[in-house]
Amino acid sequence: MHNATLPIIAILGGTGKEGRGLAIRWAHAGYAVIIGSRDPDRAAATAAELNTLLGKEPIVRGLGNVAAARECDIAVLSVPYEAHAATLASIKETVQNKLLIDVTAPLDPDNKRRVRRLASGSAGQEAQQFLGENVRVVSAFQNVSYTHLANLNEILDCDVLVCGNDKDAKRQVIELARAANMIAFDAGPIENAVVAEGLTAVLININIQAKTKSAGIHITGVPR
Amino acid sequence: MHNATLPIIAILGGTGKEGRGLAIRWAHAGYAVIIGSRDPDRAAATAAELNTLLGKEPIVRGLGNVAAARECDIAVLSVPYEAHAATLASIKETVQNKLLIDVTAPLDPDNKRRVRRLASGSAGQEAQQFLGENVRVVSAFQNVSYTHLANLNEILDCDVLVCGNDKDAKRQVIELARAANMIAFDAGPIENAVVAEGLTAVLININIQAKTKSAGIHITGVPR
Repeated sequence: MHNATLPIIAILGGTGKEGRGLAIRWAHAGYAVIIGSRDPDRAAATAAELNTLLGKEPIVRGLGNVAAARECDIAVLSVPYEAHAATLASIKETVQNKLLIDVTAPLDPDNKRRVRRLASGSAGQEAQQFLGENVRVVSAFQNVSYTHLANLNEILDCDVLVCGNDKDAKRQVIELARAANMIAFDAGPIENAVVAEGLTAVLININIQAKTKSAGIHITGVPR
Repeated sequence: MHNATLPIIAILGGTGKEGRGLAIRWAHAGYAVIIGSRDPDRAAATAAELNTLLGKEPIVRGLGNVAAARECDIAVLSVPYEAHAATLASIKETVQNKLLIDVTAPLDPDNKRRVRRLASGSAGQEAQQFLGENVRVVSAFQNVSYTHLANLNEILDCDVLVCGNDKDAKRQVIELARAANMIAFDAGPIENAVVAEGLTAVLININIQAKTKSAGIHITGVPR
């Protein structure tokens, strides 16, 4: 059963791999989770699958992205970069005064091993700029491996870099990471999102060379 | 005594902290090292200090940046970003057909905790573009802590991300990292240098919050 004192989390684009992985972790930790999708039927189907995997009383619901954004306390944007601007436009009014976690990692369409340069700096900055100051945008969770997220009891061997301009919002996201068995670090203002987003291309290079699938990073030299 | 089969390394801007740290590690490993500086006398003074620390037959020399670049096989550019363009201009002809390792991490002058955006993308890209295709530019070693470099027998708890367009040049830099007791990973093309450079601001944030000085990263999920 979900814990009603915890915030409700909507994962927009939650039918994708990473969205599902985060959803199952948070639902497992007792958060009420809503899967959002452009297609409400797909969202409902994914929610049903996740509830089966979780094997307890239904705690995950599926809705269209806008309805999901309306019913949540915290919105998590987990869409391919190609759908980033359109999804932001569709939820702009609905997420005012909420916390939005942007998980988007823009990939260069010509070469996934190369960082994609954006005029704005990063997807996280685009979200903050487009949504306006009343939405607390936090960039995080770009580099977590789905395989490991889905393995519920595994402590994830990949730290999370959390960027944003609102300290309290970052604290909430660090808490959400902990609930999903990950260690997260406040990595500075939203301008630093380019590092976390760009790490995705770096880790793709490392995975290809090492013939692995789950390269990640740990922060060293600090108490964990 | 230095090993004459190894390439000669010049560290341009080598009187600074990070330059010294790299110099002492490579000299300790048997490489002939030249400290370069705008001021040849300062370079010579730093070289003398390092030779005293190393406590063996003089293996480190000090020269002006251009002379150092002329006498080396591999040039390492370790200057503040404010001196990056001028130093590149002074050595452009001299380093043609050589390998240049760019260690520069541009910091935002208004806020060191915030990634500095460059029109070119990164200092590494600026170097590659300015020096031309006959110079193999590799971006690396931005995030290594001087304190730890100076402690010669310590295996460094910080991995090195190596970006560049020439595979063989990256292999040489990975080998140089190993000689200095660090583990390095091929992190992709020079466009990915923005990640390694920007990590500096991220690690500054983490150090300030944790009240530490030596935050770094490890790559996880791959064989080391």
